[in-house]
Amino acid sequence: MESAIKSDKAVVLLSGGIDSATTLAFAKHAGYRLYAISFDYKQRHRVELSCARRVAAFVGVEKHLVFPIDLTAVGGSALTANIKVPKHRPESQWTTEIPITYVPARNTIFLSIALAWAETLDARMILIGANAVDYSGYPDCRPEFIVEFQRLANLATKAGIEGRPIMLQAPLIDLTKAEIIRKGVEYGLDYSLTSSCYDPAFDGRACGGCDSCLIRRKGFVEAGVADPTHYMQS
Amino acid sequence: MESAIKSDKAVVLLSGGIDSATTLAFAKHAGYRLYAISFDYKQRHRVELSCARRVAAFVGVEKHLVFPIDLTAVGGSALTANIKVPKHRPESQWTTEIPITYVPARNTIFLSIALAWAETLDARMILIGANAVDYSGYPDCRPEFIVEFQRLANLATKAGIEGRPIMLQAPLIDLTKAEIIRKGVEYGLDYSLTSSCYDPAFDGRACGGCDSCLIRRKGFVEAGVADPTHYMQS
Repeated sequence: MESAIKSDKAVVLLSGGIDSATTLAFAKHAGYRLYAISFDYKQRHRVELSCARRVAAFVGVEKHLVFPIDLTAVGGSALTANIKVPKHRPESQWTTEIPITYVPARNTIFLSIALAWAETLDARMILIGANAVDYSGYPDCRPEFIVEFQRLANLATKAGIEGRPIMLQAPLIDLTKAEIIRKGVEYGLDYSLTSSCYDPAFDGRACGGCDSCLIRRKGFVEAGVADPTHYMQS
Repeated sequence: MESAIKSDKAVVLLSGGIDSATTLAFAKHAGYRLYAISFDYKQRHRVELSCARRVAAFVGVEKHLVFPIDLTAVGGSALTANIKVPKHRPESQWTTEIPITYVPARNTIFLSIALAWAETLDARMILIGANAVDYSGYPDCRPEFIVEFQRLANLATKAGIEGRPIMLQAPLIDLTKAEIIRKGVEYGLDYSLTSSCYDPAFDGRACGGCDSCLIRRKGFVEAGVADPTHYMQS
């Protein structure tokens, strides 16, 4: 990403996990004034929201909006309905089938709300930590989805049709988890502030066996960086 | 629209105004099992939600979901922030400039949530009453927006990439308001149940002067149908 003009605002989607935290640090590094947005969607792993708050404070943002949207009214996922989170799925399945932790249209919903906020703020940039290498196979994390959302954003907004398009960037889209972690370390990010687990204990400890924990653990190993996470099972 | 197979489900966006009520009646006529969705977005004209409830009951739906999403957290519009609703704008301005009642990314947000619900319900059809003839000039009511959202939906969802695409229809997109009203009358719709006003009185009466009231009044006149609305000013 080009260095930003000093006053440029960027809206950054911040879940509290590794990817979005790294994206926030990346945007900070590029010189943007940061507007972080997190979603309290009654997710099973709402503990990630306190991580998001800590990451936002650590990196330094102009504003952190925690937007409530109850996706349990829609359901259809192990993260928003009473469905068990699968554990210890073999790595071969991670990207070949879409798991039950897929939340219907989640990134479309989140990006739409981020788009509305960007338009109101007169921000010209939205950053999302979507990644399609070490990921859970969700359709709305792939590069083609990002490209298509950009097209929609240009047509859907007053800003877009009046020649002030809001650009969507997914700077981590092609990186491995290990590369993402190394980049974050470079930016001075403290990953002990982040949380990836889909099914944490009441005290916030990571389960260690869900897809997201497995991908996280593997990432730290491959990056050669000590994993600061407390897992319940090794 | 083709006649539906008896068990086909359709999600219909229902605001409580003329267009969405007519779309609901249209989908009923086509044989769909109806799942209506309305949004309580803390709009200035929340009275439309009681209209949506009455219309849903009148037409007959399987379920009516009133989804809360506080768009005042985003603001940027006379409908969601402390900004005056313009009155008696000349007709020449209705479609040549985007008015301050534009709500940033509203239809993108609403369609995203409808998409999530459709996917969870295993519905293959979403209907929206978007109209680009007698309308307020909003970018996200135009045919090109609808086409683009369809492309996004195909890429964004598990249903889409697994070959069970969710189709988006805007059956009123090319109709005048008068044609829409005549169609609704044909379906036996009672427009006294609907509300269009952006700036109603506390008792629900329409202001008579906002763009939406002006478009509604003109529509009834041109349709040659008696307007059942109680306006505060003539």
